[in-house]
Amino acid sequence: MKYEFKTDFNRITINLRNIVNQAISDYIQGVKAPSKLLDASFHLIKSGGKRIRPIILMEVTELLGGSIEEAIPAGISVEFLHNFTLIHDDIMDRDEFRRGVKTTHVLYGDSMALLAGDFLFSIVFNILSKSYDDEKTKELVKIFSWASMEICKGQAMDIEPDIYIKSVEDYLEMIYLKTASLIEASAVAGAIVADAYEYSEVIKSFGRKIGIAFQIADDLLGILGDPKKTGKPVGNDIRNGKKTLPVLYTFEHADKDQLAEFKRIFGSPKASDEEINHVVDIIKSVGAIDYSRDYMYKLADEAIQLLKSFPSSKARDYLEDLVRFIVYREV
Amino acid sequence: MKYEFKTDFNRITINLRNIVNQAISDYIQGVKAPSKLLDASFHLIKSGGKRIRPIILMEVTELLGGSIEEAIPAGISVEFLHNFTLIHDDIMDRDEFRRGVKTTHVLYGDSMALLAGDFLFSIVFNILSKSYDDEKTKELVKIFSWASMEICKGQAMDIEPDIYIKSVEDYLEMIYLKTASLIEASAVAGAIVADAYEYSEVIKSFGRKIGIAFQIADDLLGILGDPKKTGKPVGNDIRNGKKTLPVLYTFEHADKDQLAEFKRIFGSPKASDEEINHVVDIIKSVGAIDYSRDYMYKLADEAIQLLKSFPSSKARDYLEDLVRFIVYREV
Repeated sequence: MKYEFKTDFNRITINLRNIVNQAISDYIQGVKAPSKLLDASFHLIKSGGKRIRPIILMEVTELLGGSIEEAIPAGISVEFLHNFTLIHDDIMDRDEFRRGVKTTHVLYGDSMALLAGDFLFSIVFNILSKSYDDEKTKELVKIFSWASMEICKGQAMDIEPDIYIKSVEDYLEMIYLKTASLIEASAVAGAIVADAYEYSEVIKSFGRKIGIAFQIADDLLGILGDPKKTGKPVGNDIRNGKKTLPVLYTFEHADKDQLAEFKRIFGSPKASDEEINHVVDIIKSVGAIDYSRDYMYKLADEAIQLLKSFPSSKARDYLEDLVRFIVYREV
Repeated sequence: MKYEFKTDFNRITINLRNIVNQAISDYIQGVKAPSKLLDASFHLIKSGGKRIRPIILMEVTELLGGSIEEAIPAGISVEFLHNFTLIHDDIMDRDEFRRGVKTTHVLYGDSMALLAGDFLFSIVFNILSKSYDDEKTKELVKIFSWASMEICKGQAMDIEPDIYIKSVEDYLEMIYLKTASLIEASAVAGAIVADAYEYSEVIKSFGRKIGIAFQIADDLLGILGDPKKTGKPVGNDIRNGKKTLPVLYTFEHADKDQLAEFKRIFGSPKASDEEINHVVDIIKSVGAIDYSRDYMYKLADEAIQLLKSFPSSKARDYLEDLVRFIVYREV
């Protein structure tokens, strides 16, 4: 789908990302720990990433009259939190690549990777406790610890899909917990930093909608995405038997023959590229891709509507563009 | 060694432990999450434990004029934090039993156990953010997140002993990080809850000393302890090649023949009980047990001296007894 940005989106994004990367790099330089722990802890965060959570946080702060400067410590905290979850998820999923580089446990072993995640998680709260006044610290700790609990619940569902993910409804609950909660928390944290508690409900809803949309976009990329851009081998999610919105829709809407074929290949780690293509064809033919896209577009539209309750500003325009970027990136 | 308690130590301890256990149980009842995550997260904490960290926290609060009641949320937070580290440590060390029951990863699998640890860690900060005023929350988050970082550093040393633990000095740094830091943090948290920031340095030093003594006692128990009381198979630490103060002292003081014998058996998972006894004999004969005990007793004496800077009270007497309990329990 074609779309146009209202702002100089790519330039602003790169600028914000540079601010985040610089702050992460400055923080890392000050950390003293055994060398292997340092290497394992910061390998993934140094390997790149969109920094979308800190960017949302900082732009919400700006939208509500705060300064990006003040949002930086909370921004890098949420990025450390996100990276902690990725390191642990990769251990659980036995994924070998992310962002085009080897995962932490592949490079440093399971134990050191586990510990690296724990270390990043500790860092999150340590940064928060040293960067804000008492009240903001408390509110930020509350929202980030809440999101961490939600993420664990979502991941628990995700690693036991046969028990916990049986329907499109279960799936939507799972991605809310696993992914959207932290994006929601990032947005709310932006409001906290800006001292704009009165807007936290609208911002919460905005964050939730783009969070869910973001995960659906990610799931679509996992099926249709270019491995050069996603950094993951093609068919990865299908070989791993990852239940996603298109997959669950397919389960509910495929005919008997399609379902038999689908189930034969789905979740088998040694499926050939040909078999993967066959599964993708089934997913497409039952309308699961269209359904997922439409669902995602609706959330994006609602998120943009919520933004319109704030006066026009550069930050508002940027956040609108960010919503478009999230849902239209490659799908 | 014979010793007498100043207080009705066992009765008070059971009473404090019951308070902690009740609060943990109340908290757990209110948590909603996928059933497997709940089971895995709370399996270990429900299986018992001395609750020594919350007890130290609560008694320091009382020593400094605060109420035990107010210390409870911080107390259960530190116990959740401790249990999080145990669950993850057991995964890394591949330990199958703790407190006489199967470890979390044995019962629920590595992934769910990993997640259970993460969930408990999230709970720590969530409880803190909901139980205290803004200032106390900030200070408690600061001390607990600091301790969590230290624990990760200590554990990183501990899982790579060939790189990081080459001397008695390295060992003492490691146990400070891995064990004493959280006991120190528990004591300091007691001072924070009591609004007695002016005493935090003395309390910190007290906590550090008993923390190190506690770990040395634990290491001695790992070599000499009754498996029925420790809940761990005899020789576990020796078969796992766990470097402890007695072991490092032995490395530095054994003669050539003793060292060859020691190295042949130490760290081999399939060592027979006879071989384990042989290693224990070497450890004893070089004086490593006496050295470790004396080191520990000295710390305990210093900790008791620090307590004497506070006016006499029931809490002070109890904390003195607790120090004696820690170092004299079974060694």
